[in-house]
Amino acid sequence: MPVNLVPTKAEELLPVKGVALGVAEAGVRKANRKDLLVVRLADGATVAGVFTQNRFCAAPVILCKEHLAQVRPVRALVVNTGNANAGTGEDGLARARKSCAELSALLGCDSAQILPFSTGVIMEPLPVDRIVAALPLALADCRENNWANAAEAIMTTDTVPKACTRRTKLGGKSVTVTGMAKGAGMIHPGMATMLGFVATDAAVSRDALQKMLAQATARSFNRITVDGDTSTNDSFILIATGAAGASAIDSERHPDYAALAAAVTEVAVWLAQAIIRDGEGATKFITVQVQGGKTEGECSQIAYAIAHSPLVKTAFFASDPNLGRLLCAIGYAGIPDLDVGRVKLYLGDVLVATDGGRNPAYREEDGQRVMQQSEITVRVELARGAAETTVWTCDLSHDYVSINADYRS
Amino acid sequence: MPVNLVPTKAEELLPVKGVALGVAEAGVRKANRKDLLVVRLADGATVAGVFTQNRFCAAPVILCKEHLAQVRPVRALVVNTGNANAGTGEDGLARARKSCAELSALLGCDSAQILPFSTGVIMEPLPVDRIVAALPLALADCRENNWANAAEAIMTTDTVPKACTRRTKLGGKSVTVTGMAKGAGMIHPGMATMLGFVATDAAVSRDALQKMLAQATARSFNRITVDGDTSTNDSFILIATGAAGASAIDSERHPDYAALAAAVTEVAVWLAQAIIRDGEGATKFITVQVQGGKTEGECSQIAYAIAHSPLVKTAFFASDPNLGRLLCAIGYAGIPDLDVGRVKLYLGDVLVATDGGRNPAYREEDGQRVMQQSEITVRVELARGAAETTVWTCDLSHDYVSINADYRS
Repeated sequence: MPVNLVPTKAEELLPVKGVALGVAEAGVRKANRKDLLVVRLADGATVAGVFTQNRFCAAPVILCKEHLAQVRPVRALVVNTGNANAGTGEDGLARARKSCAELSALLGCDSAQILPFSTGVIMEPLPVDRIVAALPLALADCRENNWANAAEAIMTTDTVPKACTRRTKLGGKSVTVTGMAKGAGMIHPGMATMLGFVATDAAVSRDALQKMLAQATARSFNRITVDGDTSTNDSFILIATGAAGASAIDSERHPDYAALAAAVTEVAVWLAQAIIRDGEGATKFITVQVQGGKTEGECSQIAYAIAHSPLVKTAFFASDPNLGRLLCAIGYAGIPDLDVGRVKLYLGDVLVATDGGRNPAYREEDGQRVMQQSEITVRVELARGAAETTVWTCDLSHDYVSINADYRS
Repeated sequence: MPVNLVPTKAEELLPVKGVALGVAEAGVRKANRKDLLVVRLADGATVAGVFTQNRFCAAPVILCKEHLAQVRPVRALVVNTGNANAGTGEDGLARARKSCAELSALLGCDSAQILPFSTGVIMEPLPVDRIVAALPLALADCRENNWANAAEAIMTTDTVPKACTRRTKLGGKSVTVTGMAKGAGMIHPGMATMLGFVATDAAVSRDALQKMLAQATARSFNRITVDGDTSTNDSFILIATGAAGASAIDSERHPDYAALAAAVTEVAVWLAQAIIRDGEGATKFITVQVQGGKTEGECSQIAYAIAHSPLVKTAFFASDPNLGRLLCAIGYAGIPDLDVGRVKLYLGDVLVATDGGRNPAYREEDGQRVMQQSEITVRVELARGAAETTVWTCDLSHDYVSINADYRS
């Protein structure tokens, strides 16, 4: 059961002109489930991407970077679940290339104009022939009003599809931003086991789009963690078709840049938070704010020390205000000159610790009251500077262990 | 149920002349359990200590460092479980000082000659009056042949007491090294939620003893992880009484240094591995070896990326050779120039991955065979240098979550 996550209704997911999506059942790993998605882009669409930092990055990630570096425009994306095509060496690259080549042949373009994505089990050969066989079915299904099916087709251990839409006005013209993502485990700041696809019918140059994507990522997918595992396949793609007819945003200084960037970031934050709300086994959604740091980097170190601590996460699962574990995590976050006597720790609105120890006015029942909630904010004040950061995580439950012990079986 | 850990029988724990141990039931947190230990040291004993790097280190850790920095010899140790006296600010320091002062009054020494230790719940006031009230009982119980009771008195979530003995010859004289430790969760390389006490009747100068302790720690307690949480209270103490009458080891160059250091390290490694074998919820004991690195530091980064990964640890729990998760962890360990095409991954004696992907000769049943075992070695060859390291960890099971969700209740 995801935590306070109401999936967006299919009719509320607005199509983006110039982006057609089609799904099929390719039988990559299991029969009778949507596991293949093709996204066709109209002429003139620009595409930007950010990818995992994992050195064992997947074959499709390598190809995506290669293809995005080319001059020719991207014409289509092909996404499969059930198999990550990661840790598969040269053979994996050849299989990813084959899926691009076959799709490009069907579309009459060059294979470098296709971006491939895979997610699922690592280190197993991609059954590319089954994918190729299903491509015509996915193409036949392609239509603009198909985001709900597409969001379902990219799910792995997700329990609900994750997609949302925002609208904004650019110079008097209405534009749409619609996005979807998948991911529930192997989720880490740099980014997450996730695939994310956001499209807009605004017109944006390649460079401006890449900047917008980087900014949105920094505030969304790079602020979440379920288990601290950085996936081999993380990819987040931003598409701008220009079909709405608004003036082309060619740089950060364009008057419409900020408004569109805000809408894109809003969609990305919604999707990133949805991933945490649907985190494997999650029963609580936890916001960790660290304020008053010297640098944003040290705020992040402390925020992630808290967000990664299995002891903190099991305490949240148990609704047990065993809050010494939070102090402990702050203490080992690796800030050598941290003066713990100046640190303040809040749980929701309750001041738990101050002056290096428990707040004398703290009462266990106050902590207990906050711990019972399904949305909890932990706030740490360092009192050594003006930097701050926020990250989102979930608790660690029995179901996390069950899901990951049983994933392949 | 600890993994292949046979507790040492009480009669096999050899006393160390000059070290007398006494336990009592102080009722620190729960009634009717041994939760207080006093260790008296004979005249002439030297003592060395290493402590947690956590910035929220416990009040007793602060006092231990302060007292060890003094010239006067340590006369006694006082250890309580049930309460960590960490995250307790100035009040916590005052309470720790009081327990030292009361014990020193009973012994007729200065309070700076007492080393205090606490372990248990963080951020709650230490019930020092109960400890003080029980000190005479613990003192009355003091005897050299009491290691088994002492090892039991320092347990928290440990399921078995952890203690062992080694003997060695120094210049024809037999000496004894006996040690005990506690710890099961909040265990991390720098060091572990652990208390460790090792004593020998060899004679060693303060400086040489501190070096020997640092070396033993680097090879034992700093090589283990259960959950990546570095405790507030980690302390590891080495005592040399000199009562065996062997010649005094005054430096690393002394002919007996190496033999004694080897015995101390052997005891420390046994205790460190015992902590992992009794790790919270552990069902498997996992050795992670990383070889062929440029530096020991990068080998450690990779070894701990594997040892900390919840996905790797749940796969071990499930005996599921979902070994792509191991490649994934190697990939995100943070070695930016790692050539994954040269990495070899072994599970036991089975070559799983090579040339950036799965070994073509690898068969799932071979991986499955190793995964079923309760002692598993993961070996990673990086082929980029001569450095190597080994760390020990356990799997992540339902019981880890249960134990830590319920710890305080």
